[in-house]
Amino acid sequence: MAKDLSVSDLMDFYSGLLTEKQKEAIELYYNQDFSLAEIAEHMDISRQGVRDFIKRGEKQLEDFEENLGLLKRFSKISKELAKLSDDVESLKRSRLSKADEDLVISMGKIIKTIENEL
Amino acid sequence: MAKDLSVSDLMDFYSGLLTEKQKEAIELYYNQDFSLAEIAEHMDISRQGVRDFIKRGEKQLEDFEENLGLLKRFSKISKELAKLSDDVESLKRSRLSKADEDLVISMGKIIKTIENEL
Repeated sequence: MAKDLSVSDLMDFYSGLLTEKQKEAIELYYNQDFSLAEIAEHMDISRQGVRDFIKRGEKQLEDFEENLGLLKRFSKISKELAKLSDDVESLKRSRLSKADEDLVISMGKIIKTIENEL
Repeated sequence: MAKDLSVSDLMDFYSGLLTEKQKEAIELYYNQDFSLAEIAEHMDISRQGVRDFIKRGEKQLEDFEENLGLLKRFSKISKELAKLSDDVESLKRSRLSKADEDLVISMGKIIKTIENEL
């Protein structure tokens, strides 16, 4: 079982639809880097039990993304937003009127607010 | 059963997790403005059956949003993006260098691209 970074991304979106035990096992494994043996001890179940929670949870996360595609939508937004952020930085280096400068600074803040939602 | 606009919004996000029949009944009712009787005839089931598909589907959509909150996240992004779009329009009316003007036009296009993902 390879530790796949994208499982963490999927968890950001869909963990709310997993069972508590699936969530716990996956979070310990992917986000806190516990070994299967450590998780087994922590959750007081067998290593095979841990493996099952993780595997079934991963499968569900993948199914959610296949059916809803929200991670893909957010990733695309995130990419476009990075371009926007670069453009704002370029504008900040330009010679602008005070009013335009304020506008550009405010735009930079809005972009940060959006990034926090992604 | 009041026709609630937000069901259509929830469908945009979560319809992929409903059964085919729930999806069909809800789409005909909310998006195509069919009556329960018309849907019953179209789906060849009872009116009560239609009502059940719709009610159960609505409940699930609400549960998905309660657990995932993605509609709320997207709505917030959408609101912030509208502000960004206003700022870009203001900048377009300013006296800018050709290079900055091009940058602002490009920003407007990026915002449109993001809006299409929302």
